[in-house]
Amino acid sequence: MISGRCAACKNQRRKCPSDCIFSPYFPANDPQKFACVHKIYGGSNVGRMLQGIPTYLREQAANALYLEAKWRIDDPVYGSVGIISSLYEQVQNAEIELAKIQAQIAFYKLQTQHVEAEPNSEVLQSQSITMEQFESDNPTITSWFN
Amino acid sequence: MISGRCAACKNQRRKCPSDCIFSPYFPANDPQKFACVHKIYGGSNVGRMLQGIPTYLREQAANALYLEAKWRIDDPVYGSVGIISSLYEQVQNAEIELAKIQAQIAFYKLQTQHVEAEPNSEVLQSQSITMEQFESDNPTITSWFN
Repeated sequence: MISGRCAACKNQRRKCPSDCIFSPYFPANDPQKFACVHKIYGGSNVGRMLQGIPTYLREQAANALYLEAKWRIDDPVYGSVGIISSLYEQVQNAEIELAKIQAQIAFYKLQTQHVEAEPNSEVLQSQSITMEQFESDNPTITSWFN
Repeated sequence: MISGRCAACKNQRRKCPSDCIFSPYFPANDPQKFACVHKIYGGSNVGRMLQGIPTYLREQAANALYLEAKWRIDDPVYGSVGIISSLYEQVQNAEIELAKIQAQIAFYKLQTQHVEAEPNSEVLQSQSITMEQFESDNPTITSWFN
């Protein structure tokens, strides 16, 4: 047994050189991290990708490769694309929700103006508008929903 | 030249077998698609991953692998993790925006109720509350922003 080998060199059953490209990012105490990237990319591809990245960014790259590999193992069909698709849907739904709520605000603002302009209960009755009337008067706002 | 080879077999300069695992998903007229996955995962890893997936899901898997590979080529440090991080931030910002706007709506609703309950211009003046007063009266709502 060679002591002090990184997880990648242990996995590959080789001596860990002093300038090992994997050693700083795949420590021996976390063999799962290398096992994941090895399963998806292959060890030599990971080494080659890390070599092509400036040293100060290699840790982020190794961590991102690990996450992508883990997601692909968890979901062999969609991998990280499945997560992106779900988040994209959440962003779209939030945008629709925001547009609806902004229309509601515009409605309440207008209603407040009506009430303040004619603070007479009889006039109030006729001035007060419904959300449906407001929407039909403001087709631009309601078109956001379509 | 062997005619009818898929992009993977053309790239690997080999005969394309009738049961080629790549052929349905990496057509000869789109060599870039295979070149991307080959660069990131290696051809044999892609073949192995496709083999492990039911036939009816392989097209989605091949397309997802292509997207992930393309994103990693475009951003060698973060790849698809960079896209996920940015979308996650958008979702969080949208949630904050929604909470703010919901608080605004609650404010306008309350203001409208005040005005309707006391439709007298003098009373109106004293009853009308500001957004600041509303926020200090409703710490639960405003705590969403913190």
